[in-house]
Amino acid sequence: MSPEDGSVDDDPPMRWNGWGDPRRESALPLAVRTLLPLLLGRVRRPAKAAELGDVDIPATRLTESDIAGLAAAVGAQHVDVSADARIRHSRGRSTPDLLRSRAHEQDAPDAVVRPGTHDEVTAVLAIASDLALAVIPFGGGTSVVGALEPQRGTQRAVVSLDLRRLTGLLALDEISAVAVLAAGTTGPEAEELLGAHGFELGHYPQSFRYATIGGFAAARSSGQNSAGHGRFETMVTGIRVATPTGDLDLGRAPGSAAGPDLVRVFLGSEGIFGVITEVRVRVHPVPQSRVFEAWSFPDFAAGAEGLRQVAQHGGGPTVIRLSDEAETAVSLAQVGRIGKALSRGASVVTVYEGDDIATRRERTASLLRNAGGTSSGEGDAAAWRDGRFDGPYLRDALLDAGVFCETLETATTWSNLARLRGAITEALRAGFAEAGAKSYVMCHVSHIYPTGASLYFTVLAGVRDDPLEVWGRVKSQVNDAIMASGGTISHHHGVGRDHAPWLAEEIGETGVRILTAIKRELDPQGILNPGAVIALTKGD
Amino acid sequence: MSPEDGSVDDDPPMRWNGWGDPRRESALPLAVRTLLPLLLGRVRRPAKAAELGDVDIPATRLTESDIAGLAAAVGAQHVDVSADARIRHSRGRSTPDLLRSRAHEQDAPDAVVRPGTHDEVTAVLAIASDLALAVIPFGGGTSVVGALEPQRGTQRAVVSLDLRRLTGLLALDEISAVAVLAAGTTGPEAEELLGAHGFELGHYPQSFRYATIGGFAAARSSGQNSAGHGRFETMVTGIRVATPTGDLDLGRAPGSAAGPDLVRVFLGSEGIFGVITEVRVRVHPVPQSRVFEAWSFPDFAAGAEGLRQVAQHGGGPTVIRLSDEAETAVSLAQVGRIGKALSRGASVVTVYEGDDIATRRERTASLLRNAGGTSSGEGDAAAWRDGRFDGPYLRDALLDAGVFCETLETATTWSNLARLRGAITEALRAGFAEAGAKSYVMCHVSHIYPTGASLYFTVLAGVRDDPLEVWGRVKSQVNDAIMASGGTISHHHGVGRDHAPWLAEEIGETGVRILTAIKRELDPQGILNPGAVIALTKGD
Repeated sequence: MSPEDGSVDDDPPMRWNGWGDPRRESALPLAVRTLLPLLLGRVRRPAKAAELGDVDIPATRLTESDIAGLAAAVGAQHVDVSADARIRHSRGRSTPDLLRSRAHEQDAPDAVVRPGTHDEVTAVLAIASDLALAVIPFGGGTSVVGALEPQRGTQRAVVSLDLRRLTGLLALDEISAVAVLAAGTTGPEAEELLGAHGFELGHYPQSFRYATIGGFAAARSSGQNSAGHGRFETMVTGIRVATPTGDLDLGRAPGSAAGPDLVRVFLGSEGIFGVITEVRVRVHPVPQSRVFEAWSFPDFAAGAEGLRQVAQHGGGPTVIRLSDEAETAVSLAQVGRIGKALSRGASVVTVYEGDDIATRRERTASLLRNAGGTSSGEGDAAAWRDGRFDGPYLRDALLDAGVFCETLETATTWSNLARLRGAITEALRAGFAEAGAKSYVMCHVSHIYPTGASLYFTVLAGVRDDPLEVWGRVKSQVNDAIMASGGTISHHHGVGRDHAPWLAEEIGETGVRILTAIKRELDPQGILNPGAVIALTKGD
Repeated sequence: MSPEDGSVDDDPPMRWNGWGDPRRESALPLAVRTLLPLLLGRVRRPAKAAELGDVDIPATRLTESDIAGLAAAVGAQHVDVSADARIRHSRGRSTPDLLRSRAHEQDAPDAVVRPGTHDEVTAVLAIASDLALAVIPFGGGTSVVGALEPQRGTQRAVVSLDLRRLTGLLALDEISAVAVLAAGTTGPEAEELLGAHGFELGHYPQSFRYATIGGFAAARSSGQNSAGHGRFETMVTGIRVATPTGDLDLGRAPGSAAGPDLVRVFLGSEGIFGVITEVRVRVHPVPQSRVFEAWSFPDFAAGAEGLRQVAQHGGGPTVIRLSDEAETAVSLAQVGRIGKALSRGASVVTVYEGDDIATRRERTASLLRNAGGTSSGEGDAAAWRDGRFDGPYLRDALLDAGVFCETLETATTWSNLARLRGAITEALRAGFAEAGAKSYVMCHVSHIYPTGASLYFTVLAGVRDDPLEVWGRVKSQVNDAIMASGGTISHHHGVGRDHAPWLAEEIGETGVRILTAIKRELDPQGILNPGAVIALTKGD
C-alpha cells in the first residue's frame, strides 16, 4: 500500500486457490523433490485443478431488493455479486480449503459487501438482521480453521463482510505508545504506517503479509516475536465493536478492575458476537538493532528444557523457536545440507531486537548451554528469518505435486509437553497408516511462556485416497488425542468451524452456555458467522 | 496458620470494626498528631463507637427449615447464625464500612455458611436457588467497594458464604511453575505453603495479610510487586468455579485461541456469576536477593516521566512507586523528618528482587537520572517496605481521632495522567470545601504499564457534618470526574456496590447487557451477590 493516499489496491489480491502473491512461482526446491520419495514413497499427482473461470457456483440467493438494501448502507459499488469476488471470499487457506478450491463446483457466499466505516458496518448488521442474511466477517482471508465457510445457519442467504476498506492508523499517542488501527489494516500496512512515526507493532504471524489487525484480535493470534512482545491479545488495550444490537467501545485503562475485562470477550470471538472495527494496541519504538543466533541440541527434549529455562528466567530473546529432529533435518535439506542435518539433533533459532541485546543474549546463551546447547552461529538463524513467511508457498507446491501437507498446533504446560507431542505424533502416524499412507511428522515450539509452550506440527503424507476424506478422519483423531492429553484445541489458529466440535470438551457445557448467552444477547437473529466457534445444532 | 495440619485458626479474626490484628494498638504517631491541625484545622472527635456486644442486628430471616437445608450441605456446625459471626460478615473495610460499624443498629446477613469443599459450594448454591436465598461470597472480608453488603435483592434472605475453609496448596507442578490453591487460602498462607517448596506467588496488595486467593481473582487485584510479576489476572492460568447451574474448569494451556478466554469472564466478576473455588497460578522461585533504592524528583511530573521510561523500557524493578509532593511530605513527617520533607519534591521507591539485579538496577537508575531523579539511598525505600501493609492501621487511628481518611484509585494512559490527577484532586478539594471541610489530598503511582499507570489517592479531611453523607457526595463527584477525564472507575479495588452505578458509563449499555446475559444464564434466580457489579434496578 501507499501510506500517502491510504490506497490498499497496489498489490494484486492473494492467489485465489493458494497462498500469496500470484506473480510468484511456487516450485518445489530440488532438494525437497529428492527427499520426498525417500520419506513418503511414490505419490500420485492430483487431477488438474479448476481455473477460476471454470468454477461453477450457485446463483446468488440475494434478491434485487436485498441488494438494494445493502447498497443503501455501503453504496452500490460495494455490494459485489460477481463470481470472481464470491469465489475469492468462499474460504480461507487451510489445506482442506485449498483442496476444495480445486473442484469445478463450489459453494460461495451470495455477495461480498465492503463497508467503509464503523457506522456502515453497523448499518449492514441491522439490514442483515432484518433481511435474515448471515454475515461472515472477512479480513485477510487467511483462516486455516474454516472460519470463512459460507454457512447460512437458519438465514436465507449469506454475505461475506469484507473489512479491507477499514484501513488506516486512526490515532497515535506517542507518549503512551498506543495506536488505534482500523480493523481491516493488514500487517504490512500497519507496520508501514507506524514505522513512519518510528513505532512498530511487532506482530508477525505467518499470515502477516495478508492478515488484518481485526483478524489478529478476533482470532487471538500469536506471532513469531511473541517471546519479546507477547500474544496479540496482550498488545490490545481497547477495541471498538459493532454488533447487531449495539456498539461497544471497550478498554479504558492499561489496568482495570472495572468488572470482567470485556475486551477479552471479543478477542477470540471470531465474529460471532460482533464485528471489531477498530483496535487500540500497544506499540514500541522500531528496534535499531537485531542479532541472530542459532543453536543445536542433542534432541528435542534437551532443547525444550533450554526453552523452559529461558521462559522462566524472562528478559530473553524476541524470537525463540525449537525445531525437532525431523523438522531440523528437512529444513537443512532444503538448503542443501542433508549430511549435516543427519548429524544434528534439534535446532533452536533466537533473534534479539531492541535494547540490552548483549545482556539478554549472554544470559540466554548461558541457559541454553547449561541445557546442552551448542551455538551454531548467525547463519542458520538468518536463513530461518529469510524464509519465515514462505511455508505456505511450499505447501502449494507440495499439493501440486500430490503430497498432502498440513499444519496444526496446540499448547500445554512444560511438564506435559513431551506427552502431548508424543500423543499427537502417534495419532498422525497411525491415522495416515490406517489409510495406507506414509507420513512424515515435524514439530516445533515457537511460543514460550513461563508455565508452558506451544507445539506446532507439520505433516506430509503420500495419500492415495481422497485426501479430504482421509485428513478429516486423521484430524479428528488428532483433536481427540489433544483433548485426551491435556492440550488446547488451538494455540493461535482459532476455532472456526473445524475445531468447534471440540471446543465444548475444552470449556465444558457451562462454558458453551456462556458463549451462547452472549451471542443470543448481542445477535438475537443469529446472523453472525453461523457455526463458527459454537457448533451448529440440529435446530440451526 | 500451621502448614502441617492446614489449620487456619491460629491467628485471631480481624478486628471486627477496623483493620487487622485486634491485639495491635493503632495510635497516631506523635508527628502525625502534630501535623494534622496544620493541615486540617481543628477536628471533632467522633462519638464513642459501639462495642461488638452492643450492636443490634435484625433477627435472622432464615427458618428452621432453611437452616436444616443449608446444614445438610455443609454440616450443622458450619451454618452460623450467631450475632458475632453475622456482624463480622456484614461489611468490608472501606471508610464508610468502618463508619457504619460504629452504629448501634446495623444490618447483617442472616447466616454465615462455611463450605469445606467445591462440592459443598455447589450444594449451597443449589439449595439457595431453591430457597430464594441471596449468597454473598466472602473471602478475607477486605473489600473496600461495598462488595460484602448484605443485600437480598429479590431473595427472601441473605447468607454470607465464608470460603476460608477452602484452604490449601492443592497441587504444585515445579517443572511448569504452576500451583493450584484453594480459593480461601490467604496471602500469607499461600506464601508459606509455596515457600516450603522454594516457590513464591509474589502478590502483595495492601490487603495481603487477610485477603484470599479467590478474592484476588474475583476482584482483579493488583499487588505492590506488579512491576515485576504483573497484575493478579496475569498470574492466573486457570480457575474452578461453582455456579448455580453448572461447574467450570477453565484454563487449559498457557496460551490458547480456543474461543474467548472464559477465565477472564470470571476474573472481575466479584461473585455475581459463580464462586471461584480453586485458582491455578504461575509461581516463581523465592527470590534470593533483594535491593532497595529510593529516589527523589523535583516534582510529580518529572517522577512520572521517569516511571514511564522504566515501564516502556521493561526489565526494571520488581516494585516501583512514585509519591507526589503531598504524600512525600507526610511520609517523611511520619518518620520525623518534616524539615527534609519540605525541601524535597516527589519520591520514588524501587525494589529489585530475583535475578540480574545489578543490570536491572543500573538500567533503571540511568532512566530515572535522565528524567531528573537523584538517588537517596536504601533507607527511605526500606522504610516504605517496613510499613507497607500498615496504612489501614493508621486510618483506624485517624478515624478514632475524628479525621476522615479514605483512599480511591484509577488508571489511565501516560499522556492523560496529569489531566486525570488534576481532575480528581480538584473534585476532592472542591467536594470537601462545599461541606466546609479542609482536606489534604495525596497521590501515588504504584502500578506501571508500558501504556499508562495507576493513580492512588489518599484524602484526609476535617469533616464536621455526617462524614458518611459528605463522603457519599464527594465520592460521587470524584467518580464523575474520573469518567469525564478518561480514567477507569477502578484500577484494582473493584466495582462492588459502590462503583456499580458508574460501570455502565465505563463499559456502555451494551457492555452491561453482556454481563447481565451471562448472569441470567448462570444464575437465573439471581441469588449471587445482588447489586454488586451490576447495579440493581427498580424491578430487583
